[in-house]
Amino acid sequence: MSAIVESVPNFSEGRRSDVIAAIVAAYNSVEGARVIDHSADADHNRSVVTLLGEPAAVSEALFRGIAKAAELIDMRQHRGEHPRIGATDVVPFVPIRDISMAECVALARGLAERVSVELGIPTYLYYHAATRPDREVLANIRRGEYEGLQAELAAGNSDRAPDFGPAQLGPAGATVIGARPPLIAYNLYLSTGDEGIAKAIAKAIRHSSGGMRYLQAMGVLVEGRAQVSMNFLDYTRTPLHRVTELVRREAARYGVGIHSAELIGLIPQQALLDAAQWYLQLDNLRPESVLEWHF
Amino acid sequence: MSAIVESVPNFSEGRRSDVIAAIVAAYNSVEGARVIDHSADADHNRSVVTLLGEPAAVSEALFRGIAKAAELIDMRQHRGEHPRIGATDVVPFVPIRDISMAECVALARGLAERVSVELGIPTYLYYHAATRPDREVLANIRRGEYEGLQAELAAGNSDRAPDFGPAQLGPAGATVIGARPPLIAYNLYLSTGDEGIAKAIAKAIRHSSGGMRYLQAMGVLVEGRAQVSMNFLDYTRTPLHRVTELVRREAARYGVGIHSAELIGLIPQQALLDAAQWYLQLDNLRPESVLEWHF
Repeated sequence: MSAIVESVPNFSEGRRSDVIAAIVAAYNSVEGARVIDHSADADHNRSVVTLLGEPAAVSEALFRGIAKAAELIDMRQHRGEHPRIGATDVVPFVPIRDISMAECVALARGLAERVSVELGIPTYLYYHAATRPDREVLANIRRGEYEGLQAELAAGNSDRAPDFGPAQLGPAGATVIGARPPLIAYNLYLSTGDEGIAKAIAKAIRHSSGGMRYLQAMGVLVEGRAQVSMNFLDYTRTPLHRVTELVRREAARYGVGIHSAELIGLIPQQALLDAAQWYLQLDNLRPESVLEWHF
Repeated sequence: MSAIVESVPNFSEGRRSDVIAAIVAAYNSVEGARVIDHSADADHNRSVVTLLGEPAAVSEALFRGIAKAAELIDMRQHRGEHPRIGATDVVPFVPIRDISMAECVALARGLAERVSVELGIPTYLYYHAATRPDREVLANIRRGEYEGLQAELAAGNSDRAPDFGPAQLGPAGATVIGARPPLIAYNLYLSTGDEGIAKAIAKAIRHSSGGMRYLQAMGVLVEGRAQVSMNFLDYTRTPLHRVTELVRREAARYGVGIHSAELIGLIPQQALLDAAQWYLQLDNLRPESVLEWHF
């Protein structure tokens, strides 16, 4: 089996359909890499592409997408609700099959250097590819957004200098490139219309306020139903099943149950197999016990 | 993706290792089909082979295995604890990927006819391939075993006549061929050494005594721990997760919990994904939401 890497580049255009189509086409123009999903958000004025394929092919496709976005997007004109610093804003490499996190870090560094040299775009390395602890977190790199970062660099603040490329922002802004585990966006709907309960549960379970380490959560109201909306940043260490049962327990505290769950985007099969193994108490499940392993 | 079928032929030799090896080699001699597991039981004097591959290749491999068993096994000499009527006793076709049950029924009928014509062995069709309702159940076809069936056929009992081939048993006996869903052998260990509790739970949940339709179960004691030992005959209709929770509820009735679960042999991945979906309440999970679907 050949190595498979995923990337989920975000670029700063969610309204002009011709621009979106041209950038997606660039991501889809390399043999061995394939766009399997893309979605545009007009309010955020931002698009998210999911790309899957062989490591070298995905890297080449990402380069072409970044070049095309730099050609068609002018950050000086860009307005949108989502924080952003560049035409191509963030590019994670995600190990999926037969590839290590360390190899994804190497891919991220290679691409970040190439983008800076060939396109003149400043690049920052984040998460597992970060060169400084404070740059593991995307929000720290993106602080102030395009306008704020541009001003700080112009003022000579060397603390904000990129890992590669010029310490100044042009119309394409800067791009953050890194390596991270697969991210899972998973929401639990509660059997109540009380948004406050979802907010209280989210606060109880998320990392930022004392909860599970690789979990982000917020409580929202969706079509009259309270929802705990979550991002799993590393499902191998903070798994879906454990968090689901934690939410169930917290909800019971308010006399409420879980109505249903939903995925936004994609989930690695292993996250579901891990949940089955945990719930069924199949402690010694071996990969080769699954029929499909033998194909 | 190409169609994949599984077969789990049982043959009546579990002691003579040279005979077992020769028959397994015959099953493994066709390009496009592969023996992924085989086990011999000396007390049962019987072996079980798990074969996986393309439909035509698996059919050819099964024919060669049946021919080799007929050459090396003499049912007049065979003794063993497990019920049996033939050198190759039973041969199910199991749909795994991109193949329907109806196509597996057609494969079963084709092989049954070929075995009778080319090898002169009487063949019976069972389960989904059965030509009569009473032959859906293997035990009905195997009633009286080799010796009893031979006597009934010799006495001219047309009710016992095979679907294909002569109405008399030679040294190779008869072979039962059919199509069935994947079978899952799944055991739950209880947090007690009281075998009686496992037996009571098994009786409560199994089809034969009023329980779930596609479930066989018995209570046994394994290394001092009570175990509910189960066969799932159709996991799509009687699923693992529902039965696990039923066992958990029955066990709680006796003040006992589930200690752990174990698989014997193989499990189709879908059975685990179904369990994850049920426990996590992912009601609208689509196949294409799973990353690996896109490979």
